[in-house]
Amino acid sequence: MLRNLKSRGLAGELAAEFVGTLILILFGCGVVAQVAAAGIGDHDSIAWAWGLGVTLGVYVASRVSGAHLNPAVTIALAVFKGFSWKKVAPYALAQTAGAFLAALLVRWNYTEVLNAADPGLTIKTQGVFSTLPGNGTLPVGDWGAFRDQIIGTAILVLVIFAITDLRNTAPLANMGPLVVGFSVVAIGMAWGTNAGYAINPARDFGPRLASWLTGYETAFQDQHGHSYWWIPVVAPVVGALIGAAIYKFFIEKFLPADEPVAVKA
Amino acid sequence: MLRNLKSRGLAGELAAEFVGTLILILFGCGVVAQVAAAGIGDHDSIAWAWGLGVTLGVYVASRVSGAHLNPAVTIALAVFKGFSWKKVAPYALAQTAGAFLAALLVRWNYTEVLNAADPGLTIKTQGVFSTLPGNGTLPVGDWGAFRDQIIGTAILVLVIFAITDLRNTAPLANMGPLVVGFSVVAIGMAWGTNAGYAINPARDFGPRLASWLTGYETAFQDQHGHSYWWIPVVAPVVGALIGAAIYKFFIEKFLPADEPVAVKA
Amino acid sequence: MLRNLKSRGLAGELAAEFVGTLILILFGCGVVAQVAAAGIGDHDSIAWAWGLGVTLGVYVASRVSGAHLNPAVTIALAVFKGFSWKKVAPYALAQTAGAFLAALLVRWNYTEVLNAADPGLTIKTQGVFSTLPGNGTLPVGDWGAFRDQIIGTAILVLVIFAITDLRNTAPLANMGPLVVGFSVVAIGMAWGTNAGYAINPARDFGPRLASWLTGYETAFQDQHGHSYWWIPVVAPVVGALIGAAIYKFFIEKFLPADEPVAVKA
Amino acid sequence: MLRNLKSRGLAGELAAEFVGTLILILFGCGVVAQVAAAGIGDHDSIAWAWGLGVTLGVYVASRVSGAHLNPAVTIALAVFKGFSWKKVAPYALAQTAGAFLAALLVRWNYTEVLNAADPGLTIKTQGVFSTLPGNGTLPVGDWGAFRDQIIGTAILVLVIFAITDLRNTAPLANMGPLVVGFSVVAIGMAWGTNAGYAINPARDFGPRLASWLTGYETAFQDQHGHSYWWIPVVAPVVGALIGAAIYKFFIEKFLPADEPVAVKA
Repeated sequence: MLRNLKSRGLAGELAAEFVGTLILILFGCGVVAQVAAAGIGDHDSIAWAWGLGVTLGVYVASRVSGAHLNPAVTIALAVFKGFSWKKVAPYALAQTAGAFLAALLVRWNYTEVLNAADPGLTIKTQGVFSTLPGNGTLPVGDWGAFRDQIIGTAILVLVIFAITDLRNTAPLANMGPLVVGFSVVAIGMAWGTNAGYAINPARDFGPRLASWLTGYETAFQDQHGHSYWWIPVVAPVVGALIGAAIYKFFIEKFLPADEPVAVKA
Repeated sequence: MLRNLKSRGLAGELAAEFVGTLILILFGCGVVAQVAAAGIGDHDSIAWAWGLGVTLGVYVASRVSGAHLNPAVTIALAVFKGFSWKKVAPYALAQTAGAFLAALLVRWNYTEVLNAADPGLTIKTQGVFSTLPGNGTLPVGDWGAFRDQIIGTAILVLVIFAITDLRNTAPLANMGPLVVGFSVVAIGMAWGTNAGYAINPARDFGPRLASWLTGYETAFQDQHGHSYWWIPVVAPVVGALIGAAIYKFFIEKFLPADEPVAVKA
Repeated sequence: MLRNLKSRGLAGELAAEFVGTLILILFGCGVVAQVAAAGIGDHDSIAWAWGLGVTLGVYVASRVSGAHLNPAVTIALAVFKGFSWKKVAPYALAQTAGAFLAALLVRWNYTEVLNAADPGLTIKTQGVFSTLPGNGTLPVGDWGAFRDQIIGTAILVLVIFAITDLRNTAPLANMGPLVVGFSVVAIGMAWGTNAGYAINPARDFGPRLASWLTGYETAFQDQHGHSYWWIPVVAPVVGALIGAAIYKFFIEKFLPADEPVAVKA
Repeated sequence: MLRNLKSRGLAGELAAEFVGTLILILFGCGVVAQVAAAGIGDHDSIAWAWGLGVTLGVYVASRVSGAHLNPAVTIALAVFKGFSWKKVAPYALAQTAGAFLAALLVRWNYTEVLNAADPGLTIKTQGVFSTLPGNGTLPVGDWGAFRDQIIGTAILVLVIFAITDLRNTAPLANMGPLVVGFSVVAIGMAWGTNAGYAINPARDFGPRLASWLTGYETAFQDQHGHSYWWIPVVAPVVGALIGAAIYKFFIEKFLPADEPVAVKA
C-alpha cells in the first residue's frame, strides 16, 4: 500500500482507485443496508464488514495505484510523502465515482427491503448511504460531528502511516492491508458515535449523491434540517493532515535511517 | 490457492476438492443449525464460521487441487486462467459430493435439535441446508435473489482473483486462505439479505439434495412455492464471470509484467 | 506446532504442555465464567476466547513440546506421525494437570459471581468447567453427544494436520497457531450444540475434577443423572484418529514429496 | 516489539511511548464511551476495540521504543530482560501522559452523549475512563479485584514474553503486534469480570485523573466508597512479575540456545 511504484500510467491508477473504492463501498453500504433495513446483524457486523471492505479494496488496488481509496489519505500523502499534486484531483474523482457506483448497486439490490423498512426514503434509512450527526438519533450537533471527524481521521491516518512505514515495523508478507482494515474495524467500534465514522470524503459524498438521485430528497441535510454534507468532506481532510503531522514529528523523525533488515522475517 | 501446480493426478485433485468442500460445509451448515435450531449464537456467528470454514477448507485442499471448492470459481478459472475445461465437470461433481456428505453429517448430528425446533421439517429450518429468497421471511422475490447472487459472486471472485494474484499484493507466507475466508465473512455480513449468500452452486445444491432426501419435502422450492434451486446454481456462475472480467480489464491489465519481488517479505 | 524437534528433555516438554494447557483453560473456563455467571458477553465471546486461548497456548508451548495441549492430538500424532508412544501418557498427564490448575484458578477468582449466580453450585454453572449433553438444556442425549464429539474432533485434527503440514500450504512466518486457534473459534460456533465442543479429554476432565473438588457434587454426571465424564474423554480420541486418517488417505498421499519451496514467502 | 534496538535517544523513546499509549487509549476509552454512553455496540465490541487498540499502538511505537505502553510490562522487562532501570520511570510517565491526553480527548468528544446518559457524571459512566470492582455493579470487592488483576496481568505478560521471544515461535513478518492485540481481546472476554481488565497502571491511572479533573468527583473511589485507584496500579505490577517468572522458569529455560532458523519463513 501507499508505495509509489514506478508509474504505469494514470489510467490504470484511476481504474484501480475506482474499483478498489467500489469494493470498499459495496461492503460498507451493503452491511448497513443489511443491518438497518433487513435487521440481519448488529453494530459489530457493521464495524467488521466496513473494515474488511477496506482490507479487500486495498488488496484489489494496492499494486497499481497504492490503494488510497480516500481523498483525505491522498491529500495527506501529497503533503507529507511527495505524492504528485497533479494526481490528487483525479484520484479523488475516481474514488468518489467508485463509491457512487457501489452505492447505486446497493440501492438497487436492496430496493425491496429499503422500501419495506422505510417507504418514504427518509432519514430513517439515509444512514445506509451517508452519515449523520449522532447517527441521526443521538443528541450530537454539527460541531460534535465536525470535531469527531477530525479526531477519527487523524487516528486513521496516523496508524496507516505507521503500518505502511517500512522503517517502522510494517507488517510484511503483504499482510499490511489486513491490519489497515482492522484499524477501521476498531474506529467503527470506538469512534462511530458522533458522525458515523465517515473519515473519508469519497465514502460519504459519493453514496450521498447516489441516494439523493434515487429518491432520498433530504440526503444533503441532517436531522436538524441543516446542510450537513460538507462536514464529512472537510473535517476528514483536516484530521488527515493532523494525524500525518503527529506521525511525522513524534515517530518518524526518531526512526533509524535504513530499513530494519534484521527485524524482517 | 488457485495455483496450477504440476499435475499429480485427477484422483488426488478430486479427493482434495471433495474433502475441502466437506470441511467448508461442515462449518457452514453446522453453524446455521446451531443458530437456527439450537439458538446458540447469532448472525455474526454465521458469518464468521462460514468464512473460517472457507479458510480451513482451502488450507486442506490448496496444495493438491488449488482449493476452488466452488464450481463458479472453477468455471471462472477455466475461462480466464486456463484451467483445464476437461476438469471442470469432475471438479464440480467432487465439490457437490463433498457438500452433500457434509450436509448429511450435519443433518444426522443435529437430528434432535432440528426435530425439536421444526418437527415437520419445513421451510423454517430449510435454511440450515440451502438458501431461500430473503432468507425465507423478507419480502424479496426470485428476481431480487437472482441479481443479488450475481453481484455477491462477482464480488467474491473479483477479490479472490486479487488476493491470489502474485503480480498484485497477494498475501505471502501462505496467509492467503485466511484473507479469502475473511472475504466470505464480509460477504455474509453485507450481502446475505436477498439470497443467503449462496455464491456457490455446490454449497447450495449438495445440501439441498441432502435435506430433500432426509425429509425436507419442499427443499427445492422457495416460500412462494416456486422452483428455486436453480437460482443459486445459475446466478453465481454469471456473477463469477463478471467479477473475473472486471478484475482482468480494470486491474490485471495494469499490473507490471513480473512478480513484485521488491515488495515481498 | 507439532514439529518433532530434537529432544531437549522430557521435563521441559512436560513443563511446556502444562503451561500451554494452563493458558488455554485460563481463557476457556474464564470466558464461560464471565458469560454464564457474570452475564458479560455472549456465545460469540465464548467461541473467540476459547479459540484465541488455543492460539496463545500454542505460542507459549510450541517450540519446546510441539504444543499438543490435547491428549487426542497427542495420540493421533503417535499413531500417524511417529510421536513417541512412551511420551503419550506423560503428555496427557501434564495437559490434564495444566487444565486442572487453570480451572482451580478460575474457580477461585470467580468465587463471588459463581456464588451469586448459582449458590448451590449446581448443573446451572457446571458448564463453566466441563461439558454437558446439549449444554445442559437442549434435548440431546448421551448418544447425541458421543457422535458429536467424534465428528467435532475429527474436524479439529483434520484441519490441524493440514495447517501444520509443510508439504501442504501451511501458514509460514510462525502464523500457524493463529489459524489453529481460528479453527477452534469456528468449531465453537458450528459444533458446540450437542456437547459443548470438548474435543479434548484434558480440557474436560481436568476442570471437571477441579469443580468436583471445590463443591460441584454432580460434576461427573449429566442433567439426566447419567455418568457422563467418560464421553468427552473417549469420543475425542476416536474422532482424532478418524480425522487424521481422512487427512492421510484423502490429502497427504496426494501431496508432492518435497516441501513447496516455490510457494514459500 | 520489546526488542532493545540500539539507542536512538530517550526523547524519541518517550515520544513513541506517549503516542503509542495515546492511540491505545483513544480506542480503549472511546469504545467504552460508545457502548456505555451511546448504546452502540456490546461487550464484544469493547473486547475487540481494546485489543486492536493495543495492536495499533504497538505498530506505531514498536520500532522506536519497543512499544511497552504499560508500566507493568516495562518493569517486567527491567527485572527479567535487562531493560534499563533508569528508563523505567520516564517510560511510565510518558505512558501515563499519553493515556491521560487520550482520555481528555474522549471526554471532550463524547461530551454530549456522556451528559445525556449521566448528567451528574457519576459512577454510572466512570467505567468509560477507569475500572471498578465488578465493573461497578457485580458483587465483587476489593480483594476480588486485586487477585484478579494479578492473574490477568500474569497471563498478559506470560503470553507477551512468548509471542516476542524469537527463540520460541514468535510470529515473524512483523505480525507479532496483531497476536499481542488478540491476547488482549481474549483477556477482555475471559478476565474482565472482577476488575474490568485494567492490567496496565497507565491505562487506568491516566484516564482516572482525566475524568476527575473534568467533573467525575468520585473518580478515585469505587462503588463502596473505598479508595480504589491504587489496586489497578499495584496489582498489575505484581502480576507482571509473576507471569514473566513463570515464562522464564517453565518455558524459556527449556528453549534451545539459538534462534530457530529452520522454522522461519
